[in-house]
Amino acid sequence: MNQTNPEKNTRKPRAPRAPKAAAQAKPDTAKNARTKSAPKAAQPAEARPAENVRRKPFYSRTRRPQQKQKTGPAAVPMHIIPLGGLGEVGKNITLYECQGDMLMVDCGLVFPDSDMFGVDLVIPDFTYVVQNKDRIKGVIITHGHEDHIGALPYLLKQVNLPVYATRLTIGLIKNKLEEHGLLGRTKLVEITPRRKFKLGCFTVDPIHVNHSIPDAVAFAIECPAGVVLQTGDFKIDYTPLSGGPTDLAAFAEYGRKGVLALLSDSTNAERPGFTATEKKVAQSFANLFHRADKQRIIIATFASNLYRIQQIIDLAVENGRKVAVSGRSMANNTQMALELGYLHAPEGVLIDIEQLNKYPPEKVVLITTGSQGEPLSALSRMASSSHRNVRVGPGDFIIISATPIPGNEKMVTKVVNGLLLLGAEVIYESMYDVHVSGHACQEEQKLILTLTAPKYFLPVHGEYKQLKKHAMTAESLGIPAQNIHIAEIGQDIRLSADGLETCEPVPAGAVMVDGLGVGDVGNVVLRDRRHLSQDGLVIVVATVSADGQLLAGPDLVSRGFVYVRESEELMDEARKLVIQCFERCRAERAHDWNSVKTRVRETLSAYIYRRTKRSPMILPILMEV
Amino acid sequence: MNQTNPEKNTRKPRAPRAPKAAAQAKPDTAKNARTKSAPKAAQPAEARPAENVRRKPFYSRTRRPQQKQKTGPAAVPMHIIPLGGLGEVGKNITLYECQGDMLMVDCGLVFPDSDMFGVDLVIPDFTYVVQNKDRIKGVIITHGHEDHIGALPYLLKQVNLPVYATRLTIGLIKNKLEEHGLLGRTKLVEITPRRKFKLGCFTVDPIHVNHSIPDAVAFAIECPAGVVLQTGDFKIDYTPLSGGPTDLAAFAEYGRKGVLALLSDSTNAERPGFTATEKKVAQSFANLFHRADKQRIIIATFASNLYRIQQIIDLAVENGRKVAVSGRSMANNTQMALELGYLHAPEGVLIDIEQLNKYPPEKVVLITTGSQGEPLSALSRMASSSHRNVRVGPGDFIIISATPIPGNEKMVTKVVNGLLLLGAEVIYESMYDVHVSGHACQEEQKLILTLTAPKYFLPVHGEYKQLKKHAMTAESLGIPAQNIHIAEIGQDIRLSADGLETCEPVPAGAVMVDGLGVGDVGNVVLRDRRHLSQDGLVIVVATVSADGQLLAGPDLVSRGFVYVRESEELMDEARKLVIQCFERCRAERAHDWNSVKTRVRETLSAYIYRRTKRSPMILPILMEV
Repeated sequence: MNQTNPEKNTRKPRAPRAPKAAAQAKPDTAKNARTKSAPKAAQPAEARPAENVRRKPFYSRTRRPQQKQKTGPAAVPMHIIPLGGLGEVGKNITLYECQGDMLMVDCGLVFPDSDMFGVDLVIPDFTYVVQNKDRIKGVIITHGHEDHIGALPYLLKQVNLPVYATRLTIGLIKNKLEEHGLLGRTKLVEITPRRKFKLGCFTVDPIHVNHSIPDAVAFAIECPAGVVLQTGDFKIDYTPLSGGPTDLAAFAEYGRKGVLALLSDSTNAERPGFTATEKKVAQSFANLFHRADKQRIIIATFASNLYRIQQIIDLAVENGRKVAVSGRSMANNTQMALELGYLHAPEGVLIDIEQLNKYPPEKVVLITTGSQGEPLSALSRMASSSHRNVRVGPGDFIIISATPIPGNEKMVTKVVNGLLLLGAEVIYESMYDVHVSGHACQEEQKLILTLTAPKYFLPVHGEYKQLKKHAMTAESLGIPAQNIHIAEIGQDIRLSADGLETCEPVPAGAVMVDGLGVGDVGNVVLRDRRHLSQDGLVIVVATVSADGQLLAGPDLVSRGFVYVRESEELMDEARKLVIQCFERCRAERAHDWNSVKTRVRETLSAYIYRRTKRSPMILPILMEV
Repeated sequence: MNQTNPEKNTRKPRAPRAPKAAAQAKPDTAKNARTKSAPKAAQPAEARPAENVRRKPFYSRTRRPQQKQKTGPAAVPMHIIPLGGLGEVGKNITLYECQGDMLMVDCGLVFPDSDMFGVDLVIPDFTYVVQNKDRIKGVIITHGHEDHIGALPYLLKQVNLPVYATRLTIGLIKNKLEEHGLLGRTKLVEITPRRKFKLGCFTVDPIHVNHSIPDAVAFAIECPAGVVLQTGDFKIDYTPLSGGPTDLAAFAEYGRKGVLALLSDSTNAERPGFTATEKKVAQSFANLFHRADKQRIIIATFASNLYRIQQIIDLAVENGRKVAVSGRSMANNTQMALELGYLHAPEGVLIDIEQLNKYPPEKVVLITTGSQGEPLSALSRMASSSHRNVRVGPGDFIIISATPIPGNEKMVTKVVNGLLLLGAEVIYESMYDVHVSGHACQEEQKLILTLTAPKYFLPVHGEYKQLKKHAMTAESLGIPAQNIHIAEIGQDIRLSADGLETCEPVPAGAVMVDGLGVGDVGNVVLRDRRHLSQDGLVIVVATVSADGQLLAGPDLVSRGFVYVRESEELMDEARKLVIQCFERCRAERAHDWNSVKTRVRETLSAYIYRRTKRSPMILPILMEV
């Protein structure tokens, strides 16, 4: 219905087309412009973004080469600099720059890959943010999930920036800042959908979107270069439990006026169709409550999914059950949501978990964390019979209201096995419809692309394969391939009505957090941990005189290598080899301790590999007396 | 159609019912009977299995309490002792015992969990097998997958047993034994479907089944106690590429005669419906070959899936393409399968991978390993541009003809991202139907349960959740709950027409293989590796005189803890604390080195945790001169 047809075109007069450089061309002025003050291109004050942006009813499916107009002033450029969230799921953070002013959207963390041994979480590299801290007018947050707010405390420890977010999101950020002792010194500003606010040359318009947490917004970011729409995480739910559907009219309104670029959520770009409505879960839950009958109901879900939690409370009320919650984040979130009015429960329905066992099984519902099988979560503790208040048994009806995030499948299976072994009935299969995604599938992505009809499209939030699919979806709608850009972390993307080009990259990457240490675990430490995890280590210690005579030792100490009591012969032989090594070094008058150590390491390493086909880390330590 | 109705019953005279003890009852004679010679119960020679087994057309859906007949001789018992494959996917191995004779079915390995650091593979604990080696008449193998044959070399190093398997399976076992230098001394006997053979008091009847590797069989194991059917891995494919469908008539025949117990594959017990036919993949491949057009086609699949490989060869011939293979196991398997006649290719179609680049892209297909994203596999090397012969680029059309095994999702994603980034087109989504499972889904499981109508049902091969689902499926068909038994590894299940009971468990478990070491990595070593992987270690070395005077050191050496150059202050402070510790010990004349070490460890541990919130392993080493 949106295809270009001549008749339609004649009825709709176009805005005059701004000069358009070839996409990907690299003008001299662009390089490093962002690190200096404002871009050099002079900008007439009257150049309003909506006029500068080429506007078409929709992308024509045939890509005709466009006439470049050589006259007129150059368009105002802006820069988009993603510092995370591309080629990964998590750690979302994007910088915008126009005429010297900067703006940050989101500041998330990502959980470590399984090969990042001992790392607790991963945050963006803030080097470029710190370099430009005086130009950044504020941080605007789309919603309160960890992958969008989790790195804020680490950022705010380095630079003090005002944070703009909706009410619930502010509540979640406050909890986080309090833990880090940052609450007093951070300016938190509450924002509301469709109430625009200005940050430097940017005018920001929050737009209500559906997601798996309430109070999520997209942003229309208006600046002299044009309007950029960043969706944040979203889906389109025509029958959400509250808050109304994604504000499609707002997207359409910007689309009509002209959108320079759209940055849209790619998480579900591989999935055809539409994401089902949260209402579907409500229906499934109602059936399962009926089926549970006289059993105690335990439901595991995400602590931030207040819609899901509200449904459970509503059904509990209907079925005459009390509701208790288990898990620290679940307790904190429900408490805060009740206080802020995002959750509602009639007096007396919510009970303390300590009271749980005072009620008969058919009179309670327990909502718990642990839907991803996290080893220390409440549900995992129930599965291993180590939960302080909850003993799971044949009288329990357990619903896992979530889908395993890739990488968590085995952990979830372990928990399901544990609960089944205890005799509980466990609903975990997708066929029961006890979970819907919070992200848009292909048809929803198409709808947003169609409504906003952006000049440039940048798929964001996702692994490369998802960004690629989203790019292909956009191309299938007629957006010219050269106007679709799969960005990389640290890329400085300069765009204007004249074209899109990438400038020199800025410092960006991942910083690992381990305990109190931020960034002190790097590749060397990780490499050692990996090595140690595979084959353990063998330490060789000896005290020697200055002329290389052995005074004590060599002693061999190993950890994580072999069970020493059953490998005495191996270790004795190894010790003999080390002694020979020392003797030979002494005979050769090789008193350079480093070369002695190297020889010990090589000798031992070769021997151990020959005997065991393992390569433990070998650490010779010499003490000279 | 199989429901009991009186009319049908009157037409079919039943075999006389043998005395039936209450299920789960534990007669005194049963305990440990297996570790002695034959069971004590005297057994009349004429008690033929088929007569002893209660026979019904099918399980009635109403469970009426059955009359126990108190007269007649006790039924002959047999024992089923699973040593692996329950509560896990892999490591399948089951022992059967009757009248003192024993039989082993399969001898598989399992790949280590991600928390089994450094472990290469996991095999069953063979203690009980070694204890009973003189009674075991042979090992019978269902098919040639690693989880059914992979532990054979480790078994055969300990006990020399004859191995019975079909032709292709023998081929695969031979390769394996050759690697381990065991080929000459092992008796390998080729078996054929429906050709019965005797092993002690057991008569074994191999039954052809469909699976993702040719030459797979189920076993009907007949002994004086009755007939037990073990399906091995199976599915029912009415239109397989070769070999014909699963021999349903054979299953029905045993069902008609009476089956004491069925042990059936539970891998897909959570999936409703039927597994699609391999022919479906053929159709998808044909479409994709057409779509690939002028591109080079690369297909990753399992090296053992010779059906899949044959399809690819056939399509290549049709499309005028040559075929090369990449990956050691792919090269070995195709070579062997060609020699044994399990693969067919016209002269000149197969080319060496070294020749690949001599042909234009549209004239070749490359079949490769790495469909699970294994880091060192050929496909992973292509994705990271480190394959010796294959440079992937925009001219490549790559099909991943497999589904990620749970736990491998992230590795597969990494490979897909890498290939896409190189510009290749990659088909990896399930919607393209480029893979079908090798295992039976619920409807197929029901068919086998219905045809065989076993008295007892033991779901095998699967996680607990899958065994449980399979048990529920069986119960839904009317098999009485007390006749369904979800066994555990090491359980000694005594069963006869009189009842099923569990005796004292036998030694069983997992033995970890790391390099050349079999079993020398145990819990202590793993615990250390895990600890080292999380926070690394700090070694404190000092040379002291007998009276506790520090002669050299203390030196602090750390690995995998912090990046030392950036943590000098922390390490200096730590060193000072250790010196204070030594001084205090000396002042207190505490010359027991162990208690000095403990004090150093505790002091350092507390300090480091306070400063970093990390708990590295702390290893104090004192050398006395």
